[in-house]
Amino acid sequence: MKKTALIMAGGRGERFWPRSRKNLPKQFLSLTDDGKTMIQLTVERILPLVKLEDIYIATNRDYKSLVMEQLPGLPEQNILCEPIGRNTAPCIGLGAVHIASKYEDALMMVLPSDHLIKYNHLFINTLEDACQVAENDTNLVTIGITPDYPETGYGYIKFNTEITNGRSFAVDRFVEKPSLEVAKEYLATEEYLWNSGMFVWKVSSILKNLEKFMPSTYEGLLNIKQAINTSEQDSVLEKEFFNFSSESIDYGIMEKAENIYILPGSFGWDDVGSWLAVERIKKTNEFGNVANGNIITIDTNNCIIEGSAKLIATIGLENLIIVDTEDATLICDKNHAGDIKKVLENLKICNRNEYI
Amino acid sequence: MKKTALIMAGGRGERFWPRSRKNLPKQFLSLTDDGKTMIQLTVERILPLVKLEDIYIATNRDYKSLVMEQLPGLPEQNILCEPIGRNTAPCIGLGAVHIASKYEDALMMVLPSDHLIKYNHLFINTLEDACQVAENDTNLVTIGITPDYPETGYGYIKFNTEITNGRSFAVDRFVEKPSLEVAKEYLATEEYLWNSGMFVWKVSSILKNLEKFMPSTYEGLLNIKQAINTSEQDSVLEKEFFNFSSESIDYGIMEKAENIYILPGSFGWDDVGSWLAVERIKKTNEFGNVANGNIITIDTNNCIIEGSAKLIATIGLENLIIVDTEDATLICDKNHAGDIKKVLENLKICNRNEYI
Repeated sequence: MKKTALIMAGGRGERFWPRSRKNLPKQFLSLTDDGKTMIQLTVERILPLVKLEDIYIATNRDYKSLVMEQLPGLPEQNILCEPIGRNTAPCIGLGAVHIASKYEDALMMVLPSDHLIKYNHLFINTLEDACQVAENDTNLVTIGITPDYPETGYGYIKFNTEITNGRSFAVDRFVEKPSLEVAKEYLATEEYLWNSGMFVWKVSSILKNLEKFMPSTYEGLLNIKQAINTSEQDSVLEKEFFNFSSESIDYGIMEKAENIYILPGSFGWDDVGSWLAVERIKKTNEFGNVANGNIITIDTNNCIIEGSAKLIATIGLENLIIVDTEDATLICDKNHAGDIKKVLENLKICNRNEYI
Repeated sequence: MKKTALIMAGGRGERFWPRSRKNLPKQFLSLTDDGKTMIQLTVERILPLVKLEDIYIATNRDYKSLVMEQLPGLPEQNILCEPIGRNTAPCIGLGAVHIASKYEDALMMVLPSDHLIKYNHLFINTLEDACQVAENDTNLVTIGITPDYPETGYGYIKFNTEITNGRSFAVDRFVEKPSLEVAKEYLATEEYLWNSGMFVWKVSSILKNLEKFMPSTYEGLLNIKQAINTSEQDSVLEKEFFNFSSESIDYGIMEKAENIYILPGSFGWDDVGSWLAVERIKKTNEFGNVANGNIITIDTNNCIIEGSAKLIATIGLENLIIVDTEDATLICDKNHAGDIKKVLENLKICNRNEYI
């Protein structure tokens, strides 16, 4: 069966400020040593399975030119611009009707644009397994990550070890971010995986489920589908999207539908959730520093220094994150990486939008 | 008797890098909240005693335009450019012959250009007392600072409590920077003061001593004096200065001459020896931070942040010095302030003169 992909690239992540900005979110940044951006890596990674012409990017209008710039071979009509963010269910529905208008039916992989994967070939194997399960019946397949530790920042998915389909397991339930205590219990049961936000299904399967569990959204999606390649495409899209209620695919479909399967994946997945991820991803030198740019370090250890042309000299530092950009410099203790949002709150309150 | 001053402004201090550079040393920087530069403050401070037209600035040729810019009322001929640095004795000699060519004799105060003084009126009182002592006989007067603590970075001057002249005491000897143990002993004797590098004498007195203890330099100085206001002024200055041996006034004269007196001064003197001085000098906020520029601080305490137009956001920092300039940023733990020279060594080795 035809394989297609929808890459979701509408996020406005703030956690990589000051490098990430409202007009340049994380998926369009390069955070790896190879200089490729997150979205470029995401596309490149699935090319062994999906042709470029069958890859769709769902994003915000503001980012269309960034997508075109960073993915020059991608057909322009494959960039699906959401008129407004309505969470993942309408976004995935939009991708589904576009693919359905091109192919009668097809396999559809839904992937975030801002995660990293170290073992691409293992990832491809997992996707292939997922496609097999998704091709049967109306199965909805999600890819779970085998946890390394009791992370409290991710959602978890409980599966049933007794009910299998190929290499996948039937999903029992989706659960929200747990406390550390609860996360430890999850790991102990060996029946919980991290929710990676990656899905595989037939277009027909997801549309059937949308019809069943989100009927009014489904109606709107059908209108959008009918207008594709007509003069009314944009106006219908705009009208219907504004009417959609904001709903995640997890809550809107996955927690209610039947025939949900999960494939345990172990391919070096990293959600690159903050600047701290950079030292997992990039080369560190003999002093434990990630140092990129025009840098002189004296007695400096275990720091992440992302500079540019400007000289940065550090003396006697330990465990800091230093990020320099044209108009703003961040100097942050690693233990306070989560507090970057406080800087952004401060900037918003003061209406200093040029820095956001 | 006519009062004149020679302000020595040839230093190339590296300790305020990256704000201070080879072409903008410390004496031309503003390190106080009033925005005035060190040399401007030095001149302003003595105006109650000395007319601007009687103030001479000894400096390096490269800094002549900076002096003219920062001291717009100063007559251009009062800027004495040393063709090459030969330490303080030739520099002071040059000032002496210029003053001698204008006035038959005069009192001459010799002052560094890069120290701060908090109680200017107490300083003026001390200078007046020094003038009185210097006017008698051929006394050479130095101003000593009453130590607050056993500093190991300064030279000390031992005085004789029995032999006085006005409010001054006869000097026993000049001593180099001591160890902490020795410095503590000095303070315990109550007979040692910090060597501030400030002197007061008659021009005739210092010239007599130069003739006696540095005769070949004295010869050269006489040649320079004869050429003042002639077409050969520059060429003679250049020729003689290159022939001078490098010698400090302390070693060349003060340690050998007789009739040396010291006046104990207590007027809030600060040699502004490193970035650490800035928190003694500038206002600190409720978190103990000195924060100038476009700064957002979150959980940041006891830091010195000298920014400019560029936004600097700090999170979770303690005891750091952060200095941002157009082309270079320093981030330095306070306990490593002395290691700024290591950055400059590194830059020199790599021939990156644009940053020095």
